[in-house]
Amino acid sequence: MTDTQMILTPIGRIRTPYKTLEDCPKGPGRAGQEARIELDPAFAPGLKGLTATEVDVLYWFDRAPRDVLQSVRPHDGVHCGVFAMRSPHRPNPIALSRVRVRAVEETALVVDGLDCLDGTILVDLKPVPGAMLQK
Amino acid sequence: MTDTQMILTPIGRIRTPYKTLEDCPKGPGRAGQEARIELDPAFAPGLKGLTATEVDVLYWFDRAPRDVLQSVRPHDGVHCGVFAMRSPHRPNPIALSRVRVRAVEETALVVDGLDCLDGTILVDLKPVPGAMLQK
Repeated sequence: MTDTQMILTPIGRIRTPYKTLEDCPKGPGRAGQEARIELDPAFAPGLKGLTATEVDVLYWFDRAPRDVLQSVRPHDGVHCGVFAMRSPHRPNPIALSRVRVRAVEETALVVDGLDCLDGTILVDLKPVPGAMLQK
Repeated sequence: MTDTQMILTPIGRIRTPYKTLEDCPKGPGRAGQEARIELDPAFAPGLKGLTATEVDVLYWFDRAPRDVLQSVRPHDGVHCGVFAMRSPHRPNPIALSRVRVRAVEETALVVDGLDCLDGTILVDLKPVPGAMLQK
C-alpha cells in the first residue's frame, strides 16, 4: 500500500537512574523512582496545552534483538510468542508505558518511574483518553 | 547514544471497513465494527500463547504529515501541541489503540473496532498488563 520507508525520528531522551541493563527494573510497575522525559528543543512546542494526568510513552529499545519471535515469558515461564508479552525483544522494539504525569515543564515531563536505561530515545507521547485535567 | 537508524518493519495489515479517510471514525471508541489484524505469515509465530483479553495495537499512519507540532485539538477546539492529543499528525506517526480481543486465530486477531483505513500497516501488538485470561 505504500513504499515509504518507516523511519522514526528521535524526539528526545528519557532520564532515569539506570546506567546498565542489569540496573533496570523489569516492567514500569516496578520502577519506583521518577523519570524525566526531556524533549529536544525543536519538538518542545508539541507539549503546549498538555494537561493529561497520564501519558502513553513510546520509546526505543535500541539494544534489543529484533529477530526473536518466541521466547520464555518472564512472569510465568511460559514459552510463547513475542506478541503475547511486552518484552523488548520483538520485530519493532518500541516500548510502551502508561505512566502518571507528575509535572509538565517547558521542554520536559516528570513522570512516575520508567523501566529503561538513562538516555533512552523518546519516540512519542500521547495523552491517555479520559485522563485529562479540566482547564 | 546510538547511530543506528530507527527503521520499522511492517509485520501485517489491519482490515477495516474504511476505504477512504473520510470513512474513518475519529478515534477507536467510535469505531463500532470489528477489525481484523492479519499478521504476515513470517511473524505469525509471535502470536503463540496470546491469551490477553485486551491488546495495545501500534500501527502506522503513512499519510499523516510529520512536520506539524501544534494544531487544533478536535474534541475541544483548543490550539495545542501534538503531544497533548492523539491525532495522527505528529513527528512519528504511530497510532496506538487499546482494544478488546474477540478472537485469536493462527495468523490473525479479531478485535473491537479500529479507526484506521483498510490495509493500514501493523507495527506491533502488546498484551495489556492485567488483562490476561488464565490458562
